[in-house]
Amino acid sequence: MNENQCLRLAHAIGEIRPLDEEIARLADRHSDGLTKPPGSLGKLEAIARQIAGATGLLWPDLSKKAVIVMAADHGVCEEGVSAFPQEVTPQMVLNFLSGGAAVNVLARQAGADVYCVDIGVKGELEHSELTTRKVRSGTANMAKGPAMDREEAIRAILHGVEIVDELYAKGYRLFATGEMGIGNTTASAAIAAVLTGLSPEQTVGRGTGINDEVWLHKVRVVRRAIEVNQPEAGDPFDVLGKVGGLEIAGLVGVILGAAMHRCPVVIDGFISSAAALVASRLSEHAVSYMIASHLSQEQGHLKVMESIGLAPMIQLDMRLGEGTGAVLCFHFIDAAMLLMQEMATFESAGVSRS
Amino acid sequence: MNENQCLRLAHAIGEIRPLDEEIARLADRHSDGLTKPPGSLGKLEAIARQIAGATGLLWPDLSKKAVIVMAADHGVCEEGVSAFPQEVTPQMVLNFLSGGAAVNVLARQAGADVYCVDIGVKGELEHSELTTRKVRSGTANMAKGPAMDREEAIRAILHGVEIVDELYAKGYRLFATGEMGIGNTTASAAIAAVLTGLSPEQTVGRGTGINDEVWLHKVRVVRRAIEVNQPEAGDPFDVLGKVGGLEIAGLVGVILGAAMHRCPVVIDGFISSAAALVASRLSEHAVSYMIASHLSQEQGHLKVMESIGLAPMIQLDMRLGEGTGAVLCFHFIDAAMLLMQEMATFESAGVSRS
Repeated sequence: MNENQCLRLAHAIGEIRPLDEEIARLADRHSDGLTKPPGSLGKLEAIARQIAGATGLLWPDLSKKAVIVMAADHGVCEEGVSAFPQEVTPQMVLNFLSGGAAVNVLARQAGADVYCVDIGVKGELEHSELTTRKVRSGTANMAKGPAMDREEAIRAILHGVEIVDELYAKGYRLFATGEMGIGNTTASAAIAAVLTGLSPEQTVGRGTGINDEVWLHKVRVVRRAIEVNQPEAGDPFDVLGKVGGLEIAGLVGVILGAAMHRCPVVIDGFISSAAALVASRLSEHAVSYMIASHLSQEQGHLKVMESIGLAPMIQLDMRLGEGTGAVLCFHFIDAAMLLMQEMATFESAGVSRS
Repeated sequence: MNENQCLRLAHAIGEIRPLDEEIARLADRHSDGLTKPPGSLGKLEAIARQIAGATGLLWPDLSKKAVIVMAADHGVCEEGVSAFPQEVTPQMVLNFLSGGAAVNVLARQAGADVYCVDIGVKGELEHSELTTRKVRSGTANMAKGPAMDREEAIRAILHGVEIVDELYAKGYRLFATGEMGIGNTTASAAIAAVLTGLSPEQTVGRGTGINDEVWLHKVRVVRRAIEVNQPEAGDPFDVLGKVGGLEIAGLVGVILGAAMHRCPVVIDGFISSAAALVASRLSEHAVSYMIASHLSQEQGHLKVMESIGLAPMIQLDMRLGEGTGAVLCFHFIDAAMLLMQEMATFESAGVSRS
């Protein structure tokens, strides 16, 4: 890592500010005057408050929305931890680029754009719509040594920050995290175990659909990766480098970048939450810009979210990643903004208060 | 109740058929060929299956959507069970009709139309957009005697069925239940207690926002209503008449009418779920046409849904009613249909299977 990169990262993290409580209170006051019992819109009111405090604006224009899908490969796949072969990573990247994946369908429905980033897919990928920021061709097998260098992890974070910089310059004000990478629930489970102190049995899940036997093997692989690499729980860069993934590091950057630009960022499922967990350890204020979306079927997900201080609002028993759960949440964010702007007040509608 | 009404109701209930399992299996087969791990879209796949089985069509056109907001008053308000005065019922009806309530905003966002029905508001209400089917001017105080006659409850159900008939004729194929009626969480808690066997302590909640003291009083009022009226748990019409409400009965009709026309119907919060519970006791097949939406903050809600066999998919800590939670769920139903129609298959995208 050169000095410029180091400064850029420090700057990004240092720029993240707590919410503007004054404007958040204004949002609450407005909400309490609308024709409904106070607080009865629950988290939709909380989202309106959070977005006001994050952006410094009452009801900002969030119509330009992007879901950033970071794709990368995992050396740990050679341990046989996934139900799908590794070549599915580039195949799915091409599916994202031709608009046929679940996240594309859901993004079109929600009026959002999909940006697909090759931050570490194994082998060459070329497509006019692909954003290429390849740090390396997949990680190394973390069960045998570090997944990547500390410097590579930091470079991947910086790519994430810079992609948000570019999208922000194009007018995007609402972001969602997405990912693709066969093997990435294994890396996420390792990160979650190290940073929360949970055991691999508690953080390892079924991924794309493995049986009991493979699950037990996956637990052992995660335990071995932690034993072999001895990641420092107090040093998020160390954890990310030794047992992480390039797409996870890229998403850490997306989250930090969004927070730096005072934009809300919707966190998808288990892998995205592992990235959010790392981001929360780099900047506690970054959490104020995160919006949790769905509760994944991946067993460690709820614990990781609780550790960050987030609570999901959608329970669809999904376990797909790609940003699908986060993009579904865009409808609720739009709803929160529309309610604040379009509902009648007790006074305007002539409705009696309690 | 005259003979015609009796026959009409028996016909509506008798027309409700179980899902078409053959087409539901076709939906599953299609879903399993899409570029995602099998089952990884969770409830979105289950919804696609249910809608195929309900309508008999793979991916039917559900673009015409209606939320039916039934409004009525409750005599039990004179016991002081609500945080809001009774005049709020007609005031909010006018708010629905001028488009300023939360449900109007959310329906516009979801591309749905709001139909507001005066099925039992106290006093006169006139508006060109109001559907008037007033069975009586509010219920009587159930703490002192029956809320209404059995015949009145049945007439209210039939109005609900007929409103769906009319909307179905206009091309509506997806419905949501909504309601307005100061005091209606009290009636819903009484229905829930009688039909599920739970105690009033377990079914009575905070409604629009009452304190501990009023909550205890509300529990006593519900217990007294049950003691005074002795509703027959095995006779849903008896329960509905003695401790129910006109809007709740109307929604029972909406649910039965939707099921009769093989249309999915999204169930909103606690009051709508009390209506769904009654409908489920009148026709077990009706449950197959219900889609649960959100988990309300009203404490009895989850137990009522479990008793019907439904599970919520949205957790926004809302407690507003009106159909707001159900209308938010329309986005997910649209999502399920779009995913089935637009996603690439493993073959078309050249993605390897597990």
